[in-house]
Amino acid sequence: MSRKDLGVSVKRSEDFSEWYTQVVLKAELADYAAAKGFIALRPFGYAIWEQIRQVLDDGFKATGHVNAYFPTLIPETLLRREAEHFEGFTPEVFWVTHAGNNELSERLVVRPTSETIIYDFYARWVRSWRDLPVLINLWNSVLRAEIKSTKPFLRTSEFLWQEGHTVHATKEEADEEVMRILEIYRKLIEEHLAIPALRGTKSEKEKFVGALYTTTLESMMPDGKALQMGTSHNLGQNFSKPFEIKFLGKDEKQHFAWQTSWGVSWRLIGALIMMHGDDKGLVLPPRVAPIQVVFVPVYYKDDARSMVMQKIKEGAERLRKNGCRVHVDDREEYTPGWKYNEWELKGVPLRIEVGPKDLEKDQFMLVRRDNGERKSVSSRGLEDEVKSVLDGIQSALFEKSSISLKQMTSNASSMDELTKIIEQKGGFVKAQWCGNKDCEEKVKANTGADIRLIPFDAKGSGSCTVCGNPASATVFLARAY
Amino acid sequence: MSRKDLGVSVKRSEDFSEWYTQVVLKAELADYAAAKGFIALRPFGYAIWEQIRQVLDDGFKATGHVNAYFPTLIPETLLRREAEHFEGFTPEVFWVTHAGNNELSERLVVRPTSETIIYDFYARWVRSWRDLPVLINLWNSVLRAEIKSTKPFLRTSEFLWQEGHTVHATKEEADEEVMRILEIYRKLIEEHLAIPALRGTKSEKEKFVGALYTTTLESMMPDGKALQMGTSHNLGQNFSKPFEIKFLGKDEKQHFAWQTSWGVSWRLIGALIMMHGDDKGLVLPPRVAPIQVVFVPVYYKDDARSMVMQKIKEGAERLRKNGCRVHVDDREEYTPGWKYNEWELKGVPLRIEVGPKDLEKDQFMLVRRDNGERKSVSSRGLEDEVKSVLDGIQSALFEKSSISLKQMTSNASSMDELTKIIEQKGGFVKAQWCGNKDCEEKVKANTGADIRLIPFDAKGSGSCTVCGNPASATVFLARAY
Repeated sequence: MSRKDLGVSVKRSEDFSEWYTQVVLKAELADYAAAKGFIALRPFGYAIWEQIRQVLDDGFKATGHVNAYFPTLIPETLLRREAEHFEGFTPEVFWVTHAGNNELSERLVVRPTSETIIYDFYARWVRSWRDLPVLINLWNSVLRAEIKSTKPFLRTSEFLWQEGHTVHATKEEADEEVMRILEIYRKLIEEHLAIPALRGTKSEKEKFVGALYTTTLESMMPDGKALQMGTSHNLGQNFSKPFEIKFLGKDEKQHFAWQTSWGVSWRLIGALIMMHGDDKGLVLPPRVAPIQVVFVPVYYKDDARSMVMQKIKEGAERLRKNGCRVHVDDREEYTPGWKYNEWELKGVPLRIEVGPKDLEKDQFMLVRRDNGERKSVSSRGLEDEVKSVLDGIQSALFEKSSISLKQMTSNASSMDELTKIIEQKGGFVKAQWCGNKDCEEKVKANTGADIRLIPFDAKGSGSCTVCGNPASATVFLARAY
Repeated sequence: MSRKDLGVSVKRSEDFSEWYTQVVLKAELADYAAAKGFIALRPFGYAIWEQIRQVLDDGFKATGHVNAYFPTLIPETLLRREAEHFEGFTPEVFWVTHAGNNELSERLVVRPTSETIIYDFYARWVRSWRDLPVLINLWNSVLRAEIKSTKPFLRTSEFLWQEGHTVHATKEEADEEVMRILEIYRKLIEEHLAIPALRGTKSEKEKFVGALYTTTLESMMPDGKALQMGTSHNLGQNFSKPFEIKFLGKDEKQHFAWQTSWGVSWRLIGALIMMHGDDKGLVLPPRVAPIQVVFVPVYYKDDARSMVMQKIKEGAERLRKNGCRVHVDDREEYTPGWKYNEWELKGVPLRIEVGPKDLEKDQFMLVRRDNGERKSVSSRGLEDEVKSVLDGIQSALFEKSSISLKQMTSNASSMDELTKIIEQKGGFVKAQWCGNKDCEEKVKANTGADIRLIPFDAKGSGSCTVCGNPASATVFLARAY
């Protein structure tokens, strides 16, 4: 394969969609499967997912959650038990009709989400207030037939995610849980993925089917389309009633339980690519990079090799001891230039070059992925300097994406203005809303934009941007992935 | 629920099968789903699986393996590509025929194992010797319709497992990989699960469908039935040919690759239960116990509470710092006696009681789960004593199960003797075999026993135990799960 084939052949600014696909394929994050809509998550992509998973899993466990596993296949009768939920998911579920040569007496669906199968168990496990709260999380995949074109991480017929399902004695406890999880998500997204996110609730039209209300984190991608990063739902008693999840309270009476569910998926990898990537490929924030530092030996005469490799070995060992995720690229069949391109394509935050000149000067040469900056550091100061540079990259990426968010957020005071912004500039449009679904649908029909969220802290003021009636809420609108 | 309902109500020696099921359900390891053959892995069971997974994942990564994820659904044409493989799995696969209301143009199977979907990708990913070896592992679940009765962890229509799939340039490298993995499995099984395992190859009849040969680890359960703990297959070029996994060698010629696949599943949790459990419930080896030490406060007057809890808090903190997995059971709605029963049922290796007398004497009271031994330890010596007791439990369990394996292994020099042992005593029977499938099938028909393995280090000697012709191999026969 020539270097041209290896690298991304289209500029991000010229064809964002093609650029995205090339980064996914050429950085070996994922690949298309034979079956329509499905992808494989390749080892490098999976390693990013493992980083994300670890951050979340630690956050969940620190707040008392535990993991479990529930069946992939759900009997049709269970899926039907909550009517809205069934209506919402049935157009896109995969149906299992046979086992071997035998037709099943009842059809099974491959889980599109696990509420209904889990709550059938919860009805048996929850008996008394002593059994509450139930705080269970699952790491699994869910399947929803994707009829539109496939886009890796964003639109696929199967995706990896986590889904949390909790049971509480009161609405207040469920409310608190919803916000506790949203904060764990926010930390992951802002502090690890370096992507700012707006927080708020979904409108009735956009909430999760079957939920009392849905809270969401929404980020703005550089092409002006919003991406839903994670959602946390208060299910109220909407599922506990049909599934009969009841408990004996301290008052010796039976009560229906209150529930939450919440999830984030591998679409966060898609967000990472879009938000931080450039014409050379992926740019990974150090905190979630599977490889934070790659060492590349640079020598032209073979006699320098053993001393260069010795210095690299020592440097790598010191950084590993310091908690750094380090890779040494000692392949002899590739040139240093080839390796630079490959690790830039894969977004490794920091490259350290070591050549004969560095041996002479007892130094390492550090090259930042995000801005290309080169800097030599004396051997003695390696750990401190690497830590400081990695922290610097993490901050710089967040700052850059925060500025982008600001630039991509506009105010609209009329329907004309709103339409013009959505069509010409894209991004978030802050507007006023009367709360009527008709206005929401009118905007969608005219511009393709949805209400992405109703911020927690902003009340409505003045008049609805669409109909002119008194506003009851401030909303953020955008076209979205 | 009364204490009687909470505990296991049948003796292990009286009804092993019922005892097993009660331990699974009452220790809250798993529960039956509405759909036939499926179970949920409950949080306590999942926590054991997380321990097992960590040991293996560390072992795989230390030997250069990486994780990835491949689709759940496999197009029928792919599954059909290797004929033997298809024939072997098709009677038990779940078929997806519809997405939403639309019939699919090609049926999909829910993966019963992932060879065929993965190798379709490998055909594209492997081009040159530079791309080899490919060392990929998956953590997922697979589905095989279980028509016989369900037995949690041992016979279920879906199970969690890992499956490794590697590609190599030569048969020798594939051979080495097969053995490298078998050793990782052996370490897990013997050194962490405290269960001795015999190692060897499977007969042609018993090997994985589509493999060149299968290596296996087999353990003996206390009821005299063998359990296959893990298998590691050399697939030869049996898949690389139909899937066209070829590479350009250093010799500039195209070669078909050599492959391996290997896996262990959550049946290892079943093995743990059967091997170490007793009439009170589960007994977990410390190395894989999610909770190694549980503190139970013991006081009758409320004024002792705060001092007891203070001492427990300090003890727990010290043990955690020492790398111990510790739980403090501070629930006020249960008595100490209730708690003892619950944690014994759940197999926690070591209980530490703290009451007013222990405050007085500045000591902790240690109670071993495996033999009930009580021992006080001065506060100062807590860490050392706990470490030494946990190590002692780990060794004692392995020693006990090693003695059991020895007692359950017999020699047979005639077909009559073989039949008698299998029918009256069970366990492994060491015998001589001519290598003829007819003899293998005759034993199976007469006794229900299979050739579980052909040990690596034992050649045949004398005459076949079944037909009397010259023996070519020593074999271990047993009835099995």
